[in-house]
Amino acid sequence: MRKVQVPLGERSYTIMIGPGLLDRLGLECARLKMGASCVIISDAHVAPLYGSKTIQSLTDAGFACQSITVPAGETAKHLGTVQRCYDTLASMRIERKSFIVALGGGVVGDMAGFVAATYLRGIPFVQVPTTLLAQVDSSVGGKVGVNLKAGKNLVGAFHQPRLVLCDLQTLKTLPERQFRAGMAEVIKYGMIHDAAFFKKLETAMPRLMRQDPGVLSEVIARCCQIKAEVVGQDETESGLRAILNFGHTVGHAIEKTAGYGKYLHGEAVAIGMMAAACLSHQLTGLEDDACGRLKRLLEAAGLPVAIRLTHAQKSKILTAMQSDKKVIGGDVKFVLARRVGDVLYGQKVPGNMMSGALDFNP
Amino acid sequence: MRKVQVPLGERSYTIMIGPGLLDRLGLECARLKMGASCVIISDAHVAPLYGSKTIQSLTDAGFACQSITVPAGETAKHLGTVQRCYDTLASMRIERKSFIVALGGGVVGDMAGFVAATYLRGIPFVQVPTTLLAQVDSSVGGKVGVNLKAGKNLVGAFHQPRLVLCDLQTLKTLPERQFRAGMAEVIKYGMIHDAAFFKKLETAMPRLMRQDPGVLSEVIARCCQIKAEVVGQDETESGLRAILNFGHTVGHAIEKTAGYGKYLHGEAVAIGMMAAACLSHQLTGLEDDACGRLKRLLEAAGLPVAIRLTHAQKSKILTAMQSDKKVIGGDVKFVLARRVGDVLYGQKVPGNMMSGALDFNP
Repeated sequence: MRKVQVPLGERSYTIMIGPGLLDRLGLECARLKMGASCVIISDAHVAPLYGSKTIQSLTDAGFACQSITVPAGETAKHLGTVQRCYDTLASMRIERKSFIVALGGGVVGDMAGFVAATYLRGIPFVQVPTTLLAQVDSSVGGKVGVNLKAGKNLVGAFHQPRLVLCDLQTLKTLPERQFRAGMAEVIKYGMIHDAAFFKKLETAMPRLMRQDPGVLSEVIARCCQIKAEVVGQDETESGLRAILNFGHTVGHAIEKTAGYGKYLHGEAVAIGMMAAACLSHQLTGLEDDACGRLKRLLEAAGLPVAIRLTHAQKSKILTAMQSDKKVIGGDVKFVLARRVGDVLYGQKVPGNMMSGALDFNP
Repeated sequence: MRKVQVPLGERSYTIMIGPGLLDRLGLECARLKMGASCVIISDAHVAPLYGSKTIQSLTDAGFACQSITVPAGETAKHLGTVQRCYDTLASMRIERKSFIVALGGGVVGDMAGFVAATYLRGIPFVQVPTTLLAQVDSSVGGKVGVNLKAGKNLVGAFHQPRLVLCDLQTLKTLPERQFRAGMAEVIKYGMIHDAAFFKKLETAMPRLMRQDPGVLSEVIARCCQIKAEVVGQDETESGLRAILNFGHTVGHAIEKTAGYGKYLHGEAVAIGMMAAACLSHQLTGLEDDACGRLKRLLEAAGLPVAIRLTHAQKSKILTAMQSDKKVIGGDVKFVLARRVGDVLYGQKVPGNMMSGALDFNP
């Protein structure tokens, strides 16, 4: 088992990574002296697979356990689902010292985390991410929230979990498309922060795609470490944390205009990273060779690297970018790369260039 | 004009109290270097009275100003109203540096504050409380939130305003019943923290009820000061801050079982304070004389001091107390007084005694 610390003062916590960890969940919660009762929030896909095991582990450790199952998928990540969770928690008489266990992918983690952040003005929660995307990204860092019709994650909070437990075994039941989508964020970490890690991914990708446990746990741990470092320096996204959004400005806009759920988040981010690389080539001197390496690595992970758009679709995407949370003073700010492993945030991109980046046809 | 500082490190802010301050709102926001655009959230009662003046002041100071008007009253303080605000903010293209101005009573402040706390994971906001209750209580301290069917303020966050501006002139248009209800919280501050202030209120109540500007601004400032002191020591209600809930455990339960809006918050708190005084007499040695003084002072402010209940109503109230946010480990914890100006929080009250306190017939 690997452990990564997220250093946030009194809100610090540990990410645990390894196969079969779900069995230890109750024990670890007991070690953290969590309150006597908890509610597992999971979705209709994950609850049947890992619900009983989770309840078992928590009950064995002496916790009183209840559970809420929400519909699966990004389309359920809205305020209506949150409202139903609130009402259920109230009917369960959940108290301030009780805690929530978010069992599932990024959607469940974000949504259940937001419920935990706001119910009774905030109760503790534990993340048990069951997708690669959630393990390397959304479960770490305390960003929680839900979507509005107008855009992704427009409503939310910063609420750090007390523990993140990544059981590699849960990835075995993950659809392959979801696993590949998660790999987009893995590649992102190399791109934004660690050239050696990027290089490692270039050789290890076939083993990763086979879920070789040794290399998989090493890679997940390194991703969490990078994210923890960044978040530790900038918890509430006032600066550095923005680098984690490499590929996300275009990515979010694609997800939104295509309707949530059509592109998986990671797929949209893969396309977004290629668009950002194209802009980086024009604006921050990213070399052709680096763009090519990014493209080949994304393809090795089975990810899309371009999108064919009608004129109408393209202008929808450009409008969507304007309503992104990261817009400040009307300017769309991008994270752009200077080279593999080195990015700059807050880069203004002229409107006409943005349009060109969407035509990128590698 | 009087100023009170709320000392919360980098989240510190100033409360300004005086007649005619609304004209200075824009100027003060400019001084704080708030973002270039803002949205005023107000309700159907207050917007027609002070909306234009607020827009004028902000526009004169150079801010781009839009506004949202929500229905008036506690019954609108729910997630549906919040959702409509979110959607409107998105359509207005509100950004992270934009800010919200909450113009109205406690309901508007709590609801708009929660919107500010969660929209784009938190944007700045300014409180312009227009009721006595909001000026002395809800606008100070950063507690924001909305009600669920199951109880008051069960959903919320801690989100400190950047400025609180109390214009005494706005109290002139406040219905007398609302003004009296606000006085319940004023009296509470004397009871929980300042015997001399309580004594002052005993002599000054007639002048206060006439809204004598000198004594009114002095009293509001002292209330804010006490709240700021308490909140400064315990921002997120892990300890001392609980004393601010004197009278609120029973008060909230009365509001809830009567249906939100039947009793004003202050009226329910007045009854709740008498119930707490009755329990304090039995459990923490509060003298008969102190109970009598509290009763007379509440009556001088025209507030109710008892409630006539059927057996069914009473058991509803007792059940409601069990679902209060402050319940920990199943025990209902009370704030009880030892004497005027001195209370203890976290006091367990046996179930049978709680029932007796509701029969209190002074």
